[in-house]
Amino acid sequence: MDINTLFYWVDHMGIAVFAVSGTLLAFRKNMDGFGVIVLAAVTAIGGGTTRDLILDLPVFWVYDTYYLYTILTAALLTILWLRFRDYIHQKTLLIADAVGLAFFTVMGAQKAMQAGFDPLICIIMGTVSACFGGMLRDVLARDVPMLLKGELYAFTCLAGGSVFVLVADYSQSIAIVLGLFTTLLLRLGAIRWHWSLVVFHEHHDGHR
Amino acid sequence: MDINTLFYWVDHMGIAVFAVSGTLLAFRKNMDGFGVIVLAAVTAIGGGTTRDLILDLPVFWVYDTYYLYTILTAALLTILWLRFRDYIHQKTLLIADAVGLAFFTVMGAQKAMQAGFDPLICIIMGTVSACFGGMLRDVLARDVPMLLKGELYAFTCLAGGSVFVLVADYSQSIAIVLGLFTTLLLRLGAIRWHWSLVVFHEHHDGHR
Amino acid sequence: MDINTLFYWVDHMGIAVFAVSGTLLAFRKNMDGFGVIVLAAVTAIGGGTTRDLILDLPVFWVYDTYYLYTILTAALLTILWLRFRDYIHQKTLLIADAVGLAFFTVMGAQKAMQAGFDPLICIIMGTVSACFGGMLRDVLARDVPMLLKGELYAFTCLAGGSVFVLVADYSQSIAIVLGLFTTLLLRLGAIRWHWSLVVFHEHHDGHR
Repeated sequence: MDINTLFYWVDHMGIAVFAVSGTLLAFRKNMDGFGVIVLAAVTAIGGGTTRDLILDLPVFWVYDTYYLYTILTAALLTILWLRFRDYIHQKTLLIADAVGLAFFTVMGAQKAMQAGFDPLICIIMGTVSACFGGMLRDVLARDVPMLLKGELYAFTCLAGGSVFVLVADYSQSIAIVLGLFTTLLLRLGAIRWHWSLVVFHEHHDGHR
Repeated sequence: MDINTLFYWVDHMGIAVFAVSGTLLAFRKNMDGFGVIVLAAVTAIGGGTTRDLILDLPVFWVYDTYYLYTILTAALLTILWLRFRDYIHQKTLLIADAVGLAFFTVMGAQKAMQAGFDPLICIIMGTVSACFGGMLRDVLARDVPMLLKGELYAFTCLAGGSVFVLVADYSQSIAIVLGLFTTLLLRLGAIRWHWSLVVFHEHHDGHR
Repeated sequence: MDINTLFYWVDHMGIAVFAVSGTLLAFRKNMDGFGVIVLAAVTAIGGGTTRDLILDLPVFWVYDTYYLYTILTAALLTILWLRFRDYIHQKTLLIADAVGLAFFTVMGAQKAMQAGFDPLICIIMGTVSACFGGMLRDVLARDVPMLLKGELYAFTCLAGGSVFVLVADYSQSIAIVLGLFTTLLLRLGAIRWHWSLVVFHEHHDGHR
């Protein structure tokens, strides 16, 4: 399998996993109807769309509509699976989101790299691709954005993106694997053991 | 009246109706001051701006400032009318929103078609134009986005946009009329008789 | 100091001040961790990014990564300062935001002017640059957007932007100073004396 085919698959995997995470959040929020599929779609393409707009590249799904079928398929399969459930754990949603983060961090950084941007911009674009779909999902579903909570969310993307960018000069396929695992393991570890960066001392602001 | 003049009017009608809907929501939310006009403007141009950014077309209101005067006029007339009211029905807001949806679905699809995009992308761009202004309105006013609620919101836009795209090959003026009525009647029916697509069985998630 | 150096400094000052305001809101909201820096960054570059996307100009921080170091420095210094605090006044946040508004109104209008846009569009782009970063900050932190509240928020930007655009034909450096002070004084006055535009009579809508 050549490297571009690999990237293409990584990209579709990320899209599918984020569509799953959007559907799961809709289920947890007792949403129903076509809005569920809208939330899945916004989650799946929000990050990559923001990246492409900022870098002034053609928005990826406008010129390759297969992405839209991937989203629809992932959302429908998740809906079918959820019909046999009365309840899903918050953890299921967090894990789906973490897998999506890993795929999108690598793909976002790779796309910016291919277009010849500064390494710092590549790392940030990996982070934007990974974080903005989930951010839109949380804002629309009126949930506290995972992006702003304590558990190394954007930080894992910056770390995974940095690993990818550093290694990609030697080997793109090794960089994909290392970038994916760095992001995924850091984020899963942060969820499991509540790792976080404390920047403020504890304080008691008068604000509620 | 030639077809481009017709499109121009449909476009301004949509803009005006969404400006009205933004003003109505501000009134219902007990907002006041210049923020009311900001909410009207964001509702009116949010969807079309998102469409133009995604398709990489010039953003429509930057090069034709008449749109801004349409928004201001519609918002000011609505404000004057509301000064004689103590209360407005939620239904008034829903109907204004539904009319805006119909106009924007047709115009969004038409603009993508004219620029030569894939029919699926045209239908989705009609939906994005129609839904994203109202989505921004609801997010900013901290209301539950209509887009995500059950009553065939995005679905009516996809249906109306599909009718427009299918018929537009034969006659653009017939396509406008059919597209408008499909979107409007489906949405008004959904509001009136609570039509919705149930995708999940009823469930009781532990999450509130 | 030539005029472009002056603009460059005004731009970085605005970026820094908005990064401070994002950090302050995060502190008041009892947020912690890396999300604080994310909120600072989104506040600082959200408005200018929206402006550049709408005008189809290259997004400013993608091609000059010094902006990112300015944000990081401003956020880290604010974090250090906040570590010695148990509480900050809402007023501190409002003043930081007001200073950011003034810098961004002038820079946004100037950038649109330099690119040759219609004076009305320049004024609106000043307003968009100034208001959208703070709007994103408030939406993400689930606060009521300052933009929509009564105290002459967007209005001060429109006023300051108009002054800048009118005077810039004669002297850019005088226009900067007058634009900055118009925006800042109007906004600080509105905060201090609760100036606001009343557009509706008082009403008691059934909706809460």
